[in-house]
This record gives sequence, structure tokens and C-alpha cells, in this order.
Amino acid sequence: MSKKAVLLLSGGLDSATTLAIARSEGYEVYALSFRYGQRHALELQAAARVAQGNVKEHKIAEIDLRLFGGSALTSDIAVPKERSMNAIGEGIPITYVPARNTIFLSFALAWAEVLKAYDIFIGVNALDFSGYPDCRPEFIKVYENMANLATAYGGGTNQRIRIHTPLIDLTKAEIIRKGVALGVDYGVTLSCYDPTPNGKACGMCDSCLLRAKGFKENNMNDPGG
Amino acid sequence: MSKKAVLLLSGGLDSATTLAIARSEGYEVYALSFRYGQRHALELQAAARVAQGNVKEHKIAEIDLRLFGGSALTSDIAVPKERSMNAIGEGIPITYVPARNTIFLSFALAWAEVLKAYDIFIGVNALDFSGYPDCRPEFIKVYENMANLATAYGGGTNQRIRIHTPLIDLTKAEIIRKGVALGVDYGVTLSCYDPTPNGKACGMCDSCLLRAKGFKENNMNDPGG
Repeated sequence: MSKKAVLLLSGGLDSATTLAIARSEGYEVYALSFRYGQRHALELQAAARVAQGNVKEHKIAEIDLRLFGGSALTSDIAVPKERSMNAIGEGIPITYVPARNTIFLSFALAWAEVLKAYDIFIGVNALDFSGYPDCRPEFIKVYENMANLATAYGGGTNQRIRIHTPLIDLTKAEIIRKGVALGVDYGVTLSCYDPTPNGKACGMCDSCLLRAKGFKENNMNDPGG
Repeated sequence: MSKKAVLLLSGGLDSATTLAIARSEGYEVYALSFRYGQRHALELQAAARVAQGNVKEHKIAEIDLRLFGGSALTSDIAVPKERSMNAIGEGIPITYVPARNTIFLSFALAWAEVLKAYDIFIGVNALDFSGYPDCRPEFIKVYENMANLATAYGGGTNQRIRIHTPLIDLTKAEIIRKGVALGVDYGVTLSCYDPTPNGKACGMCDSCLLRAKGFKENNMNDPGG
């Protein structure tokens, strides 16, 4: 019998690669996406394309993070464009959504408990977004500890809940190389924070710039956005 | 200037008492309730009554935990009735909602981060529901550690995020005595897991039985349900 895993799936390059890695490790994947008041519902279409044929089940949870505001991704604050790589690395970007990964992982944990799945995958990356506190390895470690005390099924010696972050210390170029080796079709993914209404990447937000840099370093053309 | 606190408010006896305690400690309270697919939207009416005049702001987050199932409170599984106090204390009840407090606290944390509030109140109680893993003191402690690493504003030496659980080691009778001393109107609260459509407590679920026992031990009549 396959091992079950819950995986957070945004439809971007990172989560698509994380899905391929989870599958290559023999997991049967239950993918979870969120409609969280983000500007781009297009992200969910990308998530559905990435999930297609690769997961056991794909659920979309509705959570309205606009209720609290505080981020360019959930309010009317403009997404920054054409920043330098140095600027991207400095401080906490306005695209940070307060407690987002904490909330996302908590929903994944709820589903994992119902499924009796001990493995949760999240495509966080500490290098490109060192500014996001909830992408740091120390956050993931303490979240995992918490998860084992939070639930009725985890915390045993053999049955510890694990949060897998296979991308956490990879560069974007390394992530792309790994994904290509595993056969990921990056043409169906969408990483852009601020796509056009017809689903094209803007090419100028931090996420687009980092993605472009990753493909360039591999001397590859990006088939998606 | 008052200290700001985010408080999880269900409209039951415990959260109403927790609110009175937070106010007595000088906090300006931002109350957060959830429409989470629970059977009783009546709970939210009670939360609004309890909040009235006692909080700076009251928000209701919509989250559909029916998406995952696994509990009598979010699915069609029957709520157990007229169990003995021994049975109530044994094992994990079917009214347990997987990862619920983890999810609730994560939303409270998101709001706290936007408000720059360092204090979160939750009316969990380890005595009456020792069967709920996410009501244990060790869970709260590790959640607090996680919260300080999860966010962009917490984790400093002077500005540590704290999860306050003033009821955690009190009996129901002690909670009621404390609330009465602070002037809580228990007539507007609703604790029942399975109220009638017009908002009357069933009198037979675990929550009703524990509440009745608490008032009885104080030789008091329960003005609510």
C-alpha cells in the first residue's frame, strides 16, 4: 500500500516540483489548494492543471484572508515590480501574507489527521525568500513539533508527523533542474503574483524575476510563467 | 494606551469567561469567531451577544472544515447524548474536530500580526476535555514557540507573542465562579453542541452535562445554555 501524503499545491513552479519529488518517493498524494482572497484565481487553474493525473485527490479550501489584510496579495496594495535581486533579498516583502504558511499547514494537518497521513509536503524555499519568516527551516521544525502534539493520531515514536520541505535549501535553478529530471511540465505552472486576466505572467514581480533567473541559469526557455 | 489582544470567541461559557478575564487584565479585545461548517450557526449569535459592548472589534472568519470531515461537529455523525462523567473523560470524543484549535489559533495569529498584538487568548480547558489533544498545556506551549518563529513581528526578547489560557487548569465550577465575580452574563452564552433550531440547549450532550455540573456545584441556576 502506498504511503499517503498531503501536499500544499499552489500551481507554481515550486509546488509542482515538490509534487514530483513526493511521487518519486512513493507517496500517494492528496493535494490541497486555497482560495484565500488572492488576486489571482488563475493560480487555482494552474494548481488543477498540475494536479491532473498526478494526485489521488485535490481539494480547494476557501479561506478569506482579506478579512485581516496586511499584504499586497490579499488587499489593494500594489505588487512591487522590477526590483533588483538585492532588493528582493532584503527585509520582508509586502507580498508576505501574515501567518499564511501557518494557516496553510494547519489545514493540511487537519486533512492529514482525517486521512491518517503522517507526511505533509510544502515547497517552501529559504534561499530566494529569506525575508518570509514562515519559510525558514527553524519555523518548519517547530511547526512539526507542534503538529505532533496538536493531533489525536500523531506524536508516537514510530508514527511521527513529518513536514517535508525538499526545496528548502535549493536555488531556483537547482529546483528547475530537479523538476526537469523528474519530468515536470513547467508549461502548466504559474508563479506570477500579478498575472494578466488571461493568465499570462507579468514578468516583472519578484516571483517572475526569480523564476526567469532560474531558467536563465540553466540556459533554458521557460515554457510557462 | 491599552494593550491589544486577539481572543477566540465561541459564545460559550468558557470563551465568555476568558473575555471577562482579558478585559480585567486591561486588554483591548479583538474577538474572532468562526463559521466553520458547524451545525449550530446559533453559536455565532451567542458570540455576537457576548461580544456586544465588550470588545473593540468582532470578526467572523468563514472556513469550511466540512471539507475534511472526521467529527460529529462538522459532519452527519450524531452528537453523543447523556453519557456518564466517566465516559466523558475517556478517550477522544467524536466531537473532536481534527486540528481545530491549531487552525483557530493560526487565524488569530494572522490577525494579531496585522494588529501588532502580542497577546492571544483562548478558553481551552485541560480538565474537562482531557481527551482533546489541542487543549493540553504542552500543545499551547509549543504552539506559542511556533508562533514566535512564524511571524515577521514576534520573537523578540521583549516582544514575545503569548498564548493566554486562563482557564486551562480550572474546573467548570471554578470557571463559573470566576466569571460571576467578573460580572459575566451567562444568560447570553450557548455551550450546547446540538441546540434546538430556536437556540435552546439540548441538555444532554457532553458540553451541556459539564455545564450543568458546574452550576450545580456552585448551587446556582444556569441562566443560559
